[in-house]
Amino acid sequence: MTLKLYDLCGSNADVRFSPFCWRSKLALKHKGLDFDAVPWRFTDKDAIAFSGQGRVPVLVDTAHDDKTVSDSWSIATYLDEAYPDRPMLMKDEAARAAAKTIQAWTDGLLFVPLRPIAVKRVWDLLDPNDQTYFRETREAALKQPLEEVSSEAAIADGYKKLGQTLRTIEPTLTDHAFLGGAEPFYGDYVVFGTLMWAHAILPNHSLDADTASAAWFERMLDLYGGYARNAPRAAA
Amino acid sequence: MTLKLYDLCGSNADVRFSPFCWRSKLALKHKGLDFDAVPWRFTDKDAIAFSGQGRVPVLVDTAHDDKTVSDSWSIATYLDEAYPDRPMLMKDEAARAAAKTIQAWTDGLLFVPLRPIAVKRVWDLLDPNDQTYFRETREAALKQPLEEVSSEAAIADGYKKLGQTLRTIEPTLTDHAFLGGAEPFYGDYVVFGTLMWAHAILPNHSLDADTASAAWFERMLDLYGGYARNAPRAAA
Repeated sequence: MTLKLYDLCGSNADVRFSPFCWRSKLALKHKGLDFDAVPWRFTDKDAIAFSGQGRVPVLVDTAHDDKTVSDSWSIATYLDEAYPDRPMLMKDEAARAAAKTIQAWTDGLLFVPLRPIAVKRVWDLLDPNDQTYFRETREAALKQPLEEVSSEAAIADGYKKLGQTLRTIEPTLTDHAFLGGAEPFYGDYVVFGTLMWAHAILPNHSLDADTASAAWFERMLDLYGGYARNAPRAAA
Repeated sequence: MTLKLYDLCGSNADVRFSPFCWRSKLALKHKGLDFDAVPWRFTDKDAIAFSGQGRVPVLVDTAHDDKTVSDSWSIATYLDEAYPDRPMLMKDEAARAAAKTIQAWTDGLLFVPLRPIAVKRVWDLLDPNDQTYFRETREAALKQPLEEVSSEAAIADGYKKLGQTLRTIEPTLTDHAFLGGAEPFYGDYVVFGTLMWAHAILPNHSLDADTASAAWFERMLDLYGGYARNAPRAAA
């Protein structure tokens, strides 16, 4: 059984950096499901038109009549519903509520300092067609040229604020191995996947040393035989 | 069996507004434990000297050799340890991890917009002795006169940012009755207790209407026979 996950890449198809695709890839590893992470670029809209929308991740479950699921949260809840006998990403309603809160914190707050760090660098790594698309859509959304979003000062500020933002998870990771407690749960993959955005594209990126968050990030890299640790990172 | 909880009050002993004491009071109600909420003022240091520190909440467990616990998080974990046969505040390590993340978010971020809304108003409600203590300690910590912390502009900005900050829990409370899922857990009391800071001292305070967070706040007020709803609020 091999499922298919459409997974964003840059001009180098081996470098995968989508925060939302990373959430789904770790979710699939957690469930112990084999999958192909199919390289996909922003302007390959035709390749995922069958999903009824234009963004990745898109999961195609070949074991369930090619059931198609897009959106990383929907993929996580689908995997628990379709594969309840495998390790649960969210074991009960309390875990779904906890993961949802962590996801809202991640999407609303953790992305803020990561944006300057990552945005222009992502553009550098894209195919020319994707560069045009990415610049247009991101500059419209952020109301700034990419070069201003990721100015040297904005990047420095981003790193400073990243450490401050991670204080929300620092006490938990001081007391527990994972945000899920003794074992990782979907909330861990949401935060970790988001941090992989910067990790995958910046070979010198790292979290503040001597923090419980940085130690947890290393543990996350090591999960499932070092799945994320062994993923190719962009060259300097 | 009646436990004792030292609980902050203003010059009117009936108005109780400490965010940390509210966490502990709801935790005791969750456990179904009878307790006296003993009124205590900031400068009554002698009254809680037996606890080895100078802040409330302080719990004295008369059913366990007057065991004394201070700090709201320690009180919550103590109650689950000492009373495991009653409803658990945090049923397992995953729940403790989830509550810890919510607490770090609350203490680090939710307090920020509440501070201008509450600080000067708290001062207004204190005994003269406590006013001196409160002004000195808070102005040293906040590096601003209380009148600037709670200027009209700062309060207006606080209300605007309060709505933005609550977006972190809004998706969870759209999908679930409580942050704990179908039932409240300690994380609910952490956030709710903190919002009670403003609710207890400002008779016209309310959260943005038509939000899931505001509806949840009403549900929390109603828990345990309307325990928090029936608590006296300061006069206008």
